[in-house]
Amino acid sequence: MRLLILNGPNLRLLGTREPEIYGAFTLADVEALACKTAEQFGAKADCFQSDIEGELVARIGAARGVYDGIVINPAAYTHTSVALRDALAASALPAIEVHISNTHRREAFRQVSYTAPMCVGQLMGFGLYGYALAVEGLIHYLNSERKRG
Amino acid sequence: MRLLILNGPNLRLLGTREPEIYGAFTLADVEALACKTAEQFGAKADCFQSDIEGELVARIGAARGVYDGIVINPAAYTHTSVALRDALAASALPAIEVHISNTHRREAFRQVSYTAPMCVGQLMGFGLYGYALAVEGLIHYLNSERKRG
Amino acid sequence: MRLLILNGPNLRLLGTREPEIYGAFTLADVEALACKTAEQFGAKADCFQSDIEGELVARIGAARGVYDGIVINPAAYTHTSVALRDALAASALPAIEVHISNTHRREAFRQVSYTAPMCVGQLMGFGLYGYALAVEGLIHYLNSERKRG
Amino acid sequence: MRLLILNGPNLRLLGTREPEIYGAFTLADVEALACKTAEQFGAKADCFQSDIEGELVARIGAARGVYDGIVINPAAYTHTSVALRDALAASALPAIEVHISNTHRREAFRQVSYTAPMCVGQLMGFGLYGYALAVEGLIHYLNSERKRG
Amino acid sequence: MRLLILNGPNLRLLGTREPEIYGAFTLADVEALACKTAEQFGAKADCFQSDIEGELVARIGAARGVYDGIVINPAAYTHTSVALRDALAASALPAIEVHISNTHRREAFRQVSYTAPMCVGQLMGFGLYGYALAVEGLIHYLNSERKRG
Amino acid sequence: MRLLILNGPNLRLLGTREPEIYGAFTLADVEALACKTAEQFGAKADCFQSDIEGELVARIGAARGVYDGIVINPAAYTHTSVALRDALAASALPAIEVHISNTHRREAFRQVSYTAPMCVGQLMGFGLYGYALAVEGLIHYLNSERKRG
Amino acid sequence: MRLLILNGPNLRLLGTREPEIYGAFTLADVEALACKTAEQFGAKADCFQSDIEGELVARIGAARGVYDGIVINPAAYTHTSVALRDALAASALPAIEVHISNTHRREAFRQVSYTAPMCVGQLMGFGLYGYALAVEGLIHYLNSERKRG
Amino acid sequence: MRLLILNGPNLRLLGTREPEIYGAFTLADVEALACKTAEQFGAKADCFQSDIEGELVARIGAARGVYDGIVINPAAYTHTSVALRDALAASALPAIEVHISNTHRREAFRQVSYTAPMCVGQLMGFGLYGYALAVEGLIHYLNSERKRG
Amino acid sequence: MRLLILNGPNLRLLGTREPEIYGAFTLADVEALACKTAEQFGAKADCFQSDIEGELVARIGAARGVYDGIVINPAAYTHTSVALRDALAASALPAIEVHISNTHRREAFRQVSYTAPMCVGQLMGFGLYGYALAVEGLIHYLNSERKRG
Amino acid sequence: MRLLILNGPNLRLLGTREPEIYGAFTLADVEALACKTAEQFGAKADCFQSDIEGELVARIGAARGVYDGIVINPAAYTHTSVALRDALAASALPAIEVHISNTHRREAFRQVSYTAPMCVGQLMGFGLYGYALAVEGLIHYLNSERKRG
Amino acid sequence: MRLLILNGPNLRLLGTREPEIYGAFTLADVEALACKTAEQFGAKADCFQSDIEGELVARIGAARGVYDGIVINPAAYTHTSVALRDALAASALPAIEVHISNTHRREAFRQVSYTAPMCVGQLMGFGLYGYALAVEGLIHYLNSERKRG
Amino acid sequence: MRLLILNGPNLRLLGTREPEIYGAFTLADVEALACKTAEQFGAKADCFQSDIEGELVARIGAARGVYDGIVINPAAYTHTSVALRDALAASALPAIEVHISNTHRREAFRQVSYTAPMCVGQLMGFGLYGYALAVEGLIHYLNSERKRG
Repeated sequence: MRLLILNGPNLRLLGTREPEIYGAFTLADVEALACKTAEQFGAKADCFQSDIEGELVARIGAARGVYDGIVINPAAYTHTSVALRDALAASALPAIEVHISNTHRREAFRQVSYTAPMCVGQLMGFGLYGYALAVEGLIHYLNSERKRG
Repeated sequence: MRLLILNGPNLRLLGTREPEIYGAFTLADVEALACKTAEQFGAKADCFQSDIEGELVARIGAARGVYDGIVINPAAYTHTSVALRDALAASALPAIEVHISNTHRREAFRQVSYTAPMCVGQLMGFGLYGYALAVEGLIHYLNSERKRG
Repeated sequence: MRLLILNGPNLRLLGTREPEIYGAFTLADVEALACKTAEQFGAKADCFQSDIEGELVARIGAARGVYDGIVINPAAYTHTSVALRDALAASALPAIEVHISNTHRREAFRQVSYTAPMCVGQLMGFGLYGYALAVEGLIHYLNSERKRG
Repeated sequence: MRLLILNGPNLRLLGTREPEIYGAFTLADVEALACKTAEQFGAKADCFQSDIEGELVARIGAARGVYDGIVINPAAYTHTSVALRDALAASALPAIEVHISNTHRREAFRQVSYTAPMCVGQLMGFGLYGYALAVEGLIHYLNSERKRG
Repeated sequence: MRLLILNGPNLRLLGTREPEIYGAFTLADVEALACKTAEQFGAKADCFQSDIEGELVARIGAARGVYDGIVINPAAYTHTSVALRDALAASALPAIEVHISNTHRREAFRQVSYTAPMCVGQLMGFGLYGYALAVEGLIHYLNSERKRG
Repeated sequence: MRLLILNGPNLRLLGTREPEIYGAFTLADVEALACKTAEQFGAKADCFQSDIEGELVARIGAARGVYDGIVINPAAYTHTSVALRDALAASALPAIEVHISNTHRREAFRQVSYTAPMCVGQLMGFGLYGYALAVEGLIHYLNSERKRG
Repeated sequence: MRLLILNGPNLRLLGTREPEIYGAFTLADVEALACKTAEQFGAKADCFQSDIEGELVARIGAARGVYDGIVINPAAYTHTSVALRDALAASALPAIEVHISNTHRREAFRQVSYTAPMCVGQLMGFGLYGYALAVEGLIHYLNSERKRG
Repeated sequence: MRLLILNGPNLRLLGTREPEIYGAFTLADVEALACKTAEQFGAKADCFQSDIEGELVARIGAARGVYDGIVINPAAYTHTSVALRDALAASALPAIEVHISNTHRREAFRQVSYTAPMCVGQLMGFGLYGYALAVEGLIHYLNSERKRG
Repeated sequence: MRLLILNGPNLRLLGTREPEIYGAFTLADVEALACKTAEQFGAKADCFQSDIEGELVARIGAARGVYDGIVINPAAYTHTSVALRDALAASALPAIEVHISNTHRREAFRQVSYTAPMCVGQLMGFGLYGYALAVEGLIHYLNSERKRG
Repeated sequence: MRLLILNGPNLRLLGTREPEIYGAFTLADVEALACKTAEQFGAKADCFQSDIEGELVARIGAARGVYDGIVINPAAYTHTSVALRDALAASALPAIEVHISNTHRREAFRQVSYTAPMCVGQLMGFGLYGYALAVEGLIHYLNSERKRG
Repeated sequence: MRLLILNGPNLRLLGTREPEIYGAFTLADVEALACKTAEQFGAKADCFQSDIEGELVARIGAARGVYDGIVINPAAYTHTSVALRDALAASALPAIEVHISNTHRREAFRQVSYTAPMCVGQLMGFGLYGYALAVEGLIHYLNSERKRG
Repeated sequence: MRLLILNGPNLRLLGTREPEIYGAFTLADVEALACKTAEQFGAKADCFQSDIEGELVARIGAARGVYDGIVINPAAYTHTSVALRDALAASALPAIEVHISNTHRREAFRQVSYTAPMCVGQLMGFGLYGYALAVEGLIHYLNSERKRG
């Protein structure tokens, strides 16, 4: 079982960026936790971050047949990117959307997610640990589907 | 560490109600999984379901000093209840909002959550297993707060 | 053939409440007419009124397997209750929504019905007699379905 | 007692048009049922169908003094015709609006009725049988008004 | 002259609930002040609090003929309850709506009051003392009406 | 100088239709006053009324080269007819829009005029006499244009 | 019969201000035409212009008992002044609203008139001559009311 | 303790202006009652009315250091004046907004108050007596602040 | 293969009507080009134009079984006619919507098409030549469907 | 005559991506058909696809003086990219917007096109063949402009 | 070169009014800086402040032929005054709009500027220094226009 | 003191792109003026332009600790990029937003700026010279902060 962990714009700055909203952990911490959690459940995770919408689109486009599922934090592109939405739909892979902060507490334009309807599930507000829950939830979903299969 | 697991209207019908949306598991399954997960992390969970908004409000009102945190699936009241929102704010307890289905895929009126901004985090779309993730996430949050404390 | 006749908040006050809008008949008149009409068509009707949204939700939740169809006047909850909508969907019973007055002539917020899309049909503006038409229409629908069945 | 039964655009196609929405009955069936129901209650009904908004307007304009009430299915003009609304208001005749399908389950633009506020009542979702209920309801209304008169 | 003092959801928690918004006084203080003020003006007040919308509806429904007027703080139900609006209209009793905080300073959804148009007047932002002003204002209104009567 | 006086749907009913809104005068009175006013200013007016949007469109389409200007009361089509708007633009004739009642005092949907931006001017609320003012205003406009010409 | 002719902000600049929209005539021309027209119909008109909303409000407030009717071009205040609306309502005098240009052809915010619903009628797009039509229309209205009186 | 009592546009007309909405009392009655109430509580009130928004702004701007609090009925400017809102904020004086009628029962544009969020509290619907309640409430607030101080 | 070419209101005026928007060609040119293009692809086209919405509705209603597909320029009715939308749906014939100008560059109300969702495709902005492309595209579609058949 | 054929995000996946919406053909098929059609009309087409908005912007920015026209399928960026709109405007080249599916049948956010108003024309719903029609239409437009030139 | 520096309502209070938003400088500081900057560039500036919208309108109305350009801080009237917008348009003088704070960070109603579209440019957020930049920018603009002239 | 000057999509085309909106100067002129102005005030500026949103995001992400402030013209991304907004917030550097044209005079979607609330100030409409003003204003801000520091 192989998972793709995608992080969107500005997440490279984690740890320095507004720690009262995003916490003091870094992108390396995020990716390490996601990989470790995957391994705990017998899966393998690859990680990719980009500030460029189209690079994330391309990575999802290339994921089909290589990965079994996606954990994605589209960050700002959550609220503006129809292209990412279409990429997730085109990939036909199960995906989990994760946000570090609780976007329900923030600006009105962050209440809209173009990508979430194309995902199996969404979770937010758990900080760094949200990636562990997302990986766990995705693997549980994949295992259920296989059983049903 | 004591947790309160709240389920809102119509969730008593789980297992019989639109299984293509809500799955084949029952409210008993939900409550058993939540309790078992809590125990796995050394906590204890009490469960309560009501179809009546005001009873859920009252239960949250009485939770302060008794519980350390709340996992709540407000179901239909998510989208209409300012009273539940105020109850969560008044309780000053950390809460996690959970939904069985991915509400981003459903009617426009389900895109609004009055309660989520009063919660630490929210997760949706993981079916029965979402309760396990919610309990795990809540306990992780409470432990982090204690360390910080 | 058994029918459940549900009346929502404030309908206990019929006859005294704003008679220029709701007429001079009472809840007892409503329930008597609904039962009599059901009997005329060889069916039996049980009646229930509550001011509490959650009690109506619970009654609908318990109706499956007991009743063949529902006639419901959700009154004010028509315009605010996602919980009743979900209850009707969960029950999977054919329902008819009835209103005493023509809500199209009233405030803008009364133009929205959360419950009507979950019903087979809706009728309004016929006063007391609307319950007779609703029962008749429901029974006709049930008979058609049986023939098709 | 004389009634005018009006049917709007595309209803001439009933029976061939999208039977999963509108059923397999024809306009002739509709008009026959309406007439028969009227006769059962001692009234007489004339029927008219047109695809042209202005012809329906003219027919209503000529109805005063000739008919005692109107049953109208304005079809698509329900949602776009202020002219039909004004015609019903100008006629000062009691009217019942009927729809074959439950428009609450369809596109957002079908949730608006320009004509319903000018009618005594409205009913929808009962298929062919809705015309019988509409005629019955209208006659009951006319009889009540006469008694009151 | 008998007055009914109604308090809505979460107000049982006054004194513990977000004191920076709602102050440090309790529901007992509120009810004591309302009763004392009524007595100062030669009236008698009964108090009732409920978290359940339908219980408040029922209490108002039963008030006619027993009370001369109502002071109501519908709390969260102010912004969501058509049922309370209808109950106040059905009671035909003069009512005063009171809020402890100045809701104009809070979330957008608190700017809408379903109940205020059914009341004689509304006041907000005076904290505990608002109940004294509300009772005084209501009694003044009732006396004026009697003189006019 | 030749003028075309157009009246839209339901205006044939003037005198019988809601006289508290539209007055007691008839369409014949309207047309007589328009013609007489035109003659007083040395012009000749032809009158046409139709309930059918497309007939009004066709009449305007045929007006070019025959008439010097148009006075039009589009009645209900004011608020719904892009076709009439396009017809007025296509005719390139100066037009005056007239309404018998003050539509600013009526329903919100009557606040929109598709046709007015294609007219030189608009007037409303003057009852029957509005047609005299409209003819006078149109002739004054045509004379000014000629002088400028 | 005495009339008050009111002109709002920036109208003092007529003749110099954007002549392609407002024409080449001056405020003096406007007031002369209004007075002359009034005299032709046996009435007398007083004129007042102010750039200050409150001065126009005060002038209307003082008009009762002195004037029989008002012709007002509220200019920019048409679209923003509730105070002028209230002043016209308080005066209980019949008023005609006049605009030099056809505001239907201009910015969206000019489509709203706070004052027009408080007037008998409105006319626009006739340039300078609109004041003559407005005075004529007002006097015709006053004469009709007297006859009815 | 010195209070400033401000009344906005058209309130000079009280007693003559639409008495079914505003009552039969005059501005002199309002100011007398406000002063008398202030004296009963040991304070002194100065009164000022203007139809001009900017004069009210200036009066509030000059109030700092002279008055302890403000009672203001901004009348129509409630719904349109950001300048008054800014003036109240700049003054940093506690203010009470009062309305004679219950604006919740009136036009939609009267549901918005630019000034209320800058006030301690608001009350409406008590007629003349609302000024007594407002003064009483303001003095009670000032005394509480002093005790706290 | 038989095609029906439909043109809506005001298109009879092509060539004289606002040539800067619609070009200098006539309706005869449009119909000749459509027929010629059909013949080039071995099909036969019949043409019909009407200013009357209901006549277009009727023509579409009668097309089933006679024609294989429709090219329609609904002109102004594109933006207002639910009846044409329903007619296209009822006909179950593949249709292509064509517009002479690029409606994306025009008024906001022209951005909405009631009919396009009931068509296979839509094209706009190609002037007269758009009819050739529409016929070509429709025939290509019909041939593809036959192959798939 | 040289044409630039641009394809936006996710179109590289054609043939594998949701074939029920986008068909079974590939990007190579699209580009081959576009080139072949151009050649049939004596023109030459270059093709470019990118998932990155800014790369498409840059390509259009470099097109001036090199190409005579553009055929563009902006895919998801149609609905979100002001930058592409500005690029098309800056290039001052005639462009045709093409979509494979009929976006009128899809989500509401796909009804908005930022780019279409900067294009000569738009077509949609013709699948692969739409590119042939777009190239043909563009070349026809360019030839017409040359003749006019 | 002569410039007019206009300051709107409440700006007389600068230095005392909410210094965390508006800074500690006074209106005298503002006017001194504006004059000094003008002189540095060889121009002369006159300053005027008023709380009264109509006085600002009148001052702009009288500016034509006297001044070469305007720097205006309309303060609260930015968001509500169509009259100031019309005055700027009527003056046909180049104007620069300046705001002390960054209004993009404040309430939603401050995001709308009626006056900015009638200005050459706008700047905000630079505090006192914004007036220096505005004067410099205006003079640069005037010099550029002269060169072009 | 080091400044970063950022220019967004399509600005590479300055001088050729729609000169009536953007002027005849080039990107090189812009960058030269920004650098020269910085030097005049004793600072040093680096310039960067990209059509790719994510490259601008990355450049801002790397600016912390290297630059003291940012002048940014986000061009089209102003109105669509939450990612740039987040980048500016994450950088915690003072920024000035500059636009060449006055966007208040353009399309409605250009009235929204995602980036301006994250900036110290904004200016627009000064053409090329706006960059000089922006640099001057930013340096003045930085100097003030240092003094305060």
